[in-house]
Amino acid sequence: MNFPVTVTVTLRKGIADPEGATIERALPALGFGGVTQVRAGKSFHMMIDAANEADALANATALAQRLLSNPVIEDATVRLGASEWDTP
Amino acid sequence: MNFPVTVTVTLRKGIADPEGATIERALPALGFGGVTQVRAGKSFHMMIDAANEADALANATALAQRLLSNPVIEDATVRLGASEWDTP
Repeated sequence: MNFPVTVTVTLRKGIADPEGATIERALPALGFGGVTQVRAGKSFHMMIDAANEADALANATALAQRLLSNPVIEDATVRLGASEWDTP
Repeated sequence: MNFPVTVTVTLRKGIADPEGATIERALPALGFGGVTQVRAGKSFHMMIDAANEADALANATALAQRLLSNPVIEDATVRLGASEWDTP
């Protein structure tokens, strides 16, 4: 059975985020005030063939930690479902 | 009041995704079979100062569509909350 999985890769707390900082600095001049703590990360969607949800989640977690993120500076969050990707 | 917002920027359907395709092609050799439809996107977290949730969401949506995504090839999904970013 195929399960939709979303992996979000985020920078660990305390790791400098130049992309987020640049966006945050630019926003007031572009008409968006009151926006703080901007952080940038990555999102991945995939379909995983597995016997059940637990297996799909375990596979996805291993894959996310070993291949999609750099554990020295990043955290990977895995969840079943892919609502952001179900665009028309 | 400050509201946490997560913006996910994904490629529109039909737009080629070389990053996702490369990951998908590499996975079997790395010990992860049965993974298909890999797509890569971006995730942003921010805190938005607004009077209420509806205002925060409206601001975030305008910001996401105008500045964080390229509407020709990308979709932006906005939601309140930032669970992926609440890492220890």
